[in-house]
Amino acid sequence: MTTMTQVSGLQHPNFTGISPSEFFYRNRHMAGFGNPVQAVYSTVRELVENSLDACEDASVLPRVQVELAEDDEGIVEIRVSDNGTGIPSANVADAFGRVLYGSKYDMRQKRGTFGLGVTMAVLYGEVTTDSPVEVHTATEPGTGHLYRIHLDIEHNCPVVTAEEPLARAEVGTTVSLRIKGDLDRSYDRVIDYLQLSTVCTPHARIDLAKNAASHQTFGPWTDSCPEQPVVSKPHPRSADPELLRKLLAGSNAELTLRKFLTESFQQVSVRTATHFIEFMALDPGIRMRDISRDGILRLSRALRKFDGFARPDSRVLSTIGTVPFLNSVQGLFTPDFVAYSKTAPGEWEGNPFIIEGVVATSPSFVASDGPSLQRFANRVPLLYDASEDVLFKAMRRLNWTRYGVADRCAARLFVHLCSTRIPYKAAGKQSIAAVAEIEDNAMVLFRDLGRKLMRGLASGQGQLRNNRKAREFAESLHLIAKFGAELAERPVPKTDGLIKSLFEVDYDE
Amino acid sequence: MTTMTQVSGLQHPNFTGISPSEFFYRNRHMAGFGNPVQAVYSTVRELVENSLDACEDASVLPRVQVELAEDDEGIVEIRVSDNGTGIPSANVADAFGRVLYGSKYDMRQKRGTFGLGVTMAVLYGEVTTDSPVEVHTATEPGTGHLYRIHLDIEHNCPVVTAEEPLARAEVGTTVSLRIKGDLDRSYDRVIDYLQLSTVCTPHARIDLAKNAASHQTFGPWTDSCPEQPVVSKPHPRSADPELLRKLLAGSNAELTLRKFLTESFQQVSVRTATHFIEFMALDPGIRMRDISRDGILRLSRALRKFDGFARPDSRVLSTIGTVPFLNSVQGLFTPDFVAYSKTAPGEWEGNPFIIEGVVATSPSFVASDGPSLQRFANRVPLLYDASEDVLFKAMRRLNWTRYGVADRCAARLFVHLCSTRIPYKAAGKQSIAAVAEIEDNAMVLFRDLGRKLMRGLASGQGQLRNNRKAREFAESLHLIAKFGAELAERPVPKTDGLIKSLFEVDYDE
Repeated sequence: MTTMTQVSGLQHPNFTGISPSEFFYRNRHMAGFGNPVQAVYSTVRELVENSLDACEDASVLPRVQVELAEDDEGIVEIRVSDNGTGIPSANVADAFGRVLYGSKYDMRQKRGTFGLGVTMAVLYGEVTTDSPVEVHTATEPGTGHLYRIHLDIEHNCPVVTAEEPLARAEVGTTVSLRIKGDLDRSYDRVIDYLQLSTVCTPHARIDLAKNAASHQTFGPWTDSCPEQPVVSKPHPRSADPELLRKLLAGSNAELTLRKFLTESFQQVSVRTATHFIEFMALDPGIRMRDISRDGILRLSRALRKFDGFARPDSRVLSTIGTVPFLNSVQGLFTPDFVAYSKTAPGEWEGNPFIIEGVVATSPSFVASDGPSLQRFANRVPLLYDASEDVLFKAMRRLNWTRYGVADRCAARLFVHLCSTRIPYKAAGKQSIAAVAEIEDNAMVLFRDLGRKLMRGLASGQGQLRNNRKAREFAESLHLIAKFGAELAERPVPKTDGLIKSLFEVDYDE
Repeated sequence: MTTMTQVSGLQHPNFTGISPSEFFYRNRHMAGFGNPVQAVYSTVRELVENSLDACEDASVLPRVQVELAEDDEGIVEIRVSDNGTGIPSANVADAFGRVLYGSKYDMRQKRGTFGLGVTMAVLYGEVTTDSPVEVHTATEPGTGHLYRIHLDIEHNCPVVTAEEPLARAEVGTTVSLRIKGDLDRSYDRVIDYLQLSTVCTPHARIDLAKNAASHQTFGPWTDSCPEQPVVSKPHPRSADPELLRKLLAGSNAELTLRKFLTESFQQVSVRTATHFIEFMALDPGIRMRDISRDGILRLSRALRKFDGFARPDSRVLSTIGTVPFLNSVQGLFTPDFVAYSKTAPGEWEGNPFIIEGVVATSPSFVASDGPSLQRFANRVPLLYDASEDVLFKAMRRLNWTRYGVADRCAARLFVHLCSTRIPYKAAGKQSIAAVAEIEDNAMVLFRDLGRKLMRGLASGQGQLRNNRKAREFAESLHLIAKFGAELAERPVPKTDGLIKSLFEVDYDE
């Protein structure tokens, strides 16, 4: 594709197209594969994210093994196994050997989003070691296949060089990759990443082995699976002309506008649709086939402007929750004070979002001129490029000395943003763009955490004991209620109100 | 493509592929189109970059007009005209209506690199206003065509809705786009961007009009075109297996390895190729058709390891240069001290690079605890996301008080990185990744600028007068030499040595 001839002063340059594989091959820095240290970290991250997503799809407690080994030539083998759903035969080749192909495009909270991550790791392995990815997967116990897959970068398509039956006792997937890497220099970051992964996925257990020698286990901090987020329809405020055209293509042209609206979108009842059509001054009986291209543009503008739609459904989101979040932070850092807070659901461009966070103090945290910040997005820890992140910016806008930080203690904030879409600034998924609605809600969260921290510092150790007692009590009571309900064959009652009234702590699950 | 049904707990998610258009449509924040303020800035930037590249291809002094107008509904019309090469008919539709299609893929310094920028603006216009891009272009005076082009996002292809002859007096291109934007809030950034564009392209004149009312002109600061960078072959140290396979596909399988190496790469003479083949312990007569897939991998490793290749050719790079760089900084900021410095050519992954910079002090600069930094990459000013940038990090590693900054003056650094490939951290092209070689050379540059600044501060105003005198003298002498040489029909002699000996200033052009 590149012009190889030595030409100077050429008048009209050569125009060519490149495949998305080739784009990301040329621009590896954008996707977290800029150098051998980053590449090890990013490969582990992409594989572990996929494993955790697959376990959540299967509604099982994630058991993930990460094995890392480096040979004398600086080739690092990375192997990640899970007990997730397994990958259907028809999808294995494309899932690993085609950029922008994936299962993460539906409208609910997922760790991965781009159909890019694991393929980027395959591409990087291809370019640096010419090795295929090895995938061993089973969607039913006692079955399974082993695949070896290369990625044809120029054509962005998989080349399967081996496919053989190989049974697994349980469902799940094991992926092995060989990349040029620097294991020693990336290892601490990998450990940080895996530890923090169990903070935002407290029901996961992750085992790590290095060169088949040193072993470590992180988590689990709870043994109950969170509820699966539901998949929803798009919200009408996200309806740009492109989305409308796509929805129209997938629906019957004979539909009336009202029917189209109620069927295509969430939060649009017949009543709301009727109001909206009045707002647009349209005939409620108008059929979709009679709406012109220009009409679609006007429809899109009106949908985004009309203020009669309820906020987007936040059941597509999966927060960590008070008890699991406090448990995981306590489990890893043994702080002497912790508190949890969560904002009301917000919305940006039709995407719902929630921000939750834990503030903790500990003598082991380094005191500086403000609290330190650990960011999470859709249950993924973000470790790089903090200073351009919207959460970091919001934190810095607060005067933390007002809340007793810095002069009296070293505090750390653990903040989790979940949304159907995270506005990442780059394909490497390290930094969240400055969306005003997110920044505003982050400020609300930080202020609330600040107040809780100040109150906690004031009441000292008593508060800490109280918090711990409340948490233990909350967990036990929840289990008792659950077992009781199962025996009685009735739905599990909510216990949060009781805890709240007992301890006057806001357990706003 | 999105699953619209309300399903919970689904076991095996839907796998689908998306087009690169759809990827960037979903992830607009990555490409600088995250909100209406950024979108105006990014659209202007992408169009102006293309215009300046087209003018350099035509070897003319760029004359660029930027016209901005906003209507009552927040729709901003952006129109950019240039006197560049014009775009051949065969390429217009794809250049504006297909993501990852472009003319910027050859190996030499270019502003654009991705085949993404202007199409992103078209895509954003499509999604927010459903308007086509309008392109009026002529590659010969007195000819020309007007096109209206939509972008089909789902299929990543252009849809031309109009194409009619419309003559232009001169060659060049005018592009008009209508996007949802916030002109008032983006206007200052646009002005900054255009002003700074004339700092790194001092021979360009850029006219700006807002709502057909206020007019401003930036530049030019010099009236001579820089030399065009040459297009080169790839350097052997950039030969990963993917590149080798591509080169092989384009060459004769009967070639010997030695011949293949000398023909495919720069800096590989017959002698060097022979040494290299000895280093690999291969038969020099081996033919390419006899090299296996595994052999290619070994060849790639050896090429990247062998230290007998000369550094990559830096004639593919186009630095701003001492006199133009000093002139443009002086023209815009009227500083009371300026100095220029440039590093020797460096290399990262086979890509040559040079960093040059100007340090300036002025009472109008805001004094802080260190100098401020204005970054440029391949003659493009970078205005966002500074704090994660490698140049910023390198600057912060220096103790500037040692050089007299902060306690004695407010200094600003203007630093220009040029390379055949800029390792941007995101498709929005705002921040450069931490490549060790670039960081090291940036440190060298900053130290040198620091020393020059310290010396300048010591000698005070005398130094400033001297500098200005030297610059004026250098320009006049160069013109005299040029005209003299033209009269005598002989090559233009170098005048830098003379200036240097007269003023003891390092004019290392």
